[in-house]
Amino acid sequence: MKLADLVQLPTEWLRGTGPMNDVVISSRIRLARNLAGMPFLTRCSDEQQREIETRLRNDIRQAHLAEEVLYVDIPSTDELDRELLVERHLISRQHAEGDEPRGVAFSSNEGLAIMVNEEDHLRVQVLRSGLELDGAIDEIARVEALLEDRMTFAFHRRYGYLTACPTNVGTGLRISVMLHLPALKMTGEIEKVFRAARDMRLAIRGLYGEGTEATGDFFQISNQTTLGKDEKQIVEDFRTEMLPNIIDYERKARQVMLAERDIDIDDKVDRALAVLHAAKLINSEEMMYLLSLVRLGVWVNRCDEMDIPTVNKLFLLTQPAHLQKMHKRVMEPRERAQARATYIRECLEAT
Amino acid sequence: MKLADLVQLPTEWLRGTGPMNDVVISSRIRLARNLAGMPFLTRCSDEQQREIETRLRNDIRQAHLAEEVLYVDIPSTDELDRELLVERHLISRQHAEGDEPRGVAFSSNEGLAIMVNEEDHLRVQVLRSGLELDGAIDEIARVEALLEDRMTFAFHRRYGYLTACPTNVGTGLRISVMLHLPALKMTGEIEKVFRAARDMRLAIRGLYGEGTEATGDFFQISNQTTLGKDEKQIVEDFRTEMLPNIIDYERKARQVMLAERDIDIDDKVDRALAVLHAAKLINSEEMMYLLSLVRLGVWVNRCDEMDIPTVNKLFLLTQPAHLQKMHKRVMEPRERAQARATYIRECLEAT
Repeated sequence: MKLADLVQLPTEWLRGTGPMNDVVISSRIRLARNLAGMPFLTRCSDEQQREIETRLRNDIRQAHLAEEVLYVDIPSTDELDRELLVERHLISRQHAEGDEPRGVAFSSNEGLAIMVNEEDHLRVQVLRSGLELDGAIDEIARVEALLEDRMTFAFHRRYGYLTACPTNVGTGLRISVMLHLPALKMTGEIEKVFRAARDMRLAIRGLYGEGTEATGDFFQISNQTTLGKDEKQIVEDFRTEMLPNIIDYERKARQVMLAERDIDIDDKVDRALAVLHAAKLINSEEMMYLLSLVRLGVWVNRCDEMDIPTVNKLFLLTQPAHLQKMHKRVMEPRERAQARATYIRECLEAT
Repeated sequence: MKLADLVQLPTEWLRGTGPMNDVVISSRIRLARNLAGMPFLTRCSDEQQREIETRLRNDIRQAHLAEEVLYVDIPSTDELDRELLVERHLISRQHAEGDEPRGVAFSSNEGLAIMVNEEDHLRVQVLRSGLELDGAIDEIARVEALLEDRMTFAFHRRYGYLTACPTNVGTGLRISVMLHLPALKMTGEIEKVFRAARDMRLAIRGLYGEGTEATGDFFQISNQTTLGKDEKQIVEDFRTEMLPNIIDYERKARQVMLAERDIDIDDKVDRALAVLHAAKLINSEEMMYLLSLVRLGVWVNRCDEMDIPTVNKLFLLTQPAHLQKMHKRVMEPRERAQARATYIRECLEAT
């Protein structure tokens, strides 16, 4: 497998299956780990940073974490390919922006990704479609064990795993779920979810993590702190209370809208579909907004024309880097808007 | 002819024919006149106001101004019918709102309308589709002469015709043209038109005259003062310079857009059409915005599906009072939005 093969392929987190997929797009668990005996990256010399990258690249290769694992060396990767990795959630935007020795290893189904020399020496991520935290936790434990066979992680008896940023010290674990909450957004009740999440020390972010705005009714909810004796309880509460409550809340909001304001749903969904068919220029933000409405329409049985795999395909493949890779050239925003509209129209006409 | 017959009929000013109809929707000339020997309405007793109304109603009837002339007594007309008259530009909003003795006479093609006891005793209006000022001036002169056979207008040797508001003293004449300037709006050059109009002491208003906002790129331009020796010159400049310049300017803007940004035009026109087909709820403002884009599309040959008569029909018949009269009941805004979307969809599917 090569990086170029990714462009037209779906990705694990957008497979559109898995439990609670009507509300939960994907589940993500990540571990932050650092090598014992090496300084954190903020304190590394260039030489040390290179040494860490080389060691980890080899260790990961030899650990046989999955049937096929691709390693991408970031400094030798052009801007467009880096952006492609960001759009596929394989690396963070921060990771894409540096030219120090760094890389990312990922399995061919993209369910597993390991960033080398992002904020920590290692950032292991497991992504699953739908709500699949148990499966994701088992998988990340398996990967961690295989890695630990080959390396020793920085660990403190009292604090736990040591990380570059204090907020990750302890388990180094972060759980995130990507939720699609269009009905709560429409009714304005989403504010209540935000308040409850804050009370539970959960963070709510946009589609691409820290510092990104929630677009098209997609929200990423994650635990914020990983240190302290309540850590396990917080994660457990998140999984067993907070999350089921939000899912239930969104589902009820959809049912209430269907019962009381079904014309509004039809109006929004049918307009979105019509615009996807008719538009000659669509920017990314509008695309997410339109697909969010269509996704809602599919789930409440008010959209015969589309299905979730098509929505997800359009969602991923019409992102800026994907579009440009598909056209094999760098494109200005206006040109992308046109290519995006054309691609969407062709997809819709083909189905 | 009865008032109820109007609901499903087109009206003169929206006939969609006449010179320069690609830019000029309609031409309108009105005369303000008051009866000699009677006080202005602000100074009238109730009794005098009633006397004026009775006299003028009879005089208008006997003047045989057109083959068929309908007289509507406003105080005995319900709110919805008054609003219908406003939407058809037969009376002003101000005229619709009072319950003192007042009325309106209009010809069956609605090209001629005479408000009795609006701001002045008489407000004679001639409306023509497209740019037809000469024809309109001839017609209004004919009507004025027929009325003068039966009454004497308040006239001052030095000031000319006397009117309730000083801005109308002199000829009492106001010329207005309704322009459709979507390309100048899109390119932002409309601001230059506004500045030039102000310099020429012309007023720019929205679709329903004084105090209304320009909606959907429709603008009403009219002369402001009717007194002073430059009056004739101002009107002449308006007709022979200002207006041809604006029309030319809009046409050029359309050509430039077609040549340089035809995708933008296709995008906007095709989206507008798609939304008109798909929407389940459309409010008046959006309807005007959408029809404005479709109208542009028809004129630049980027819209095969619609024609100008259909655009004009939808434009007029989906106004709030028209919709309610069509459904024979008072409707809430949301119900109207639904009825409007349904009506539009049915019209489009029928063509």
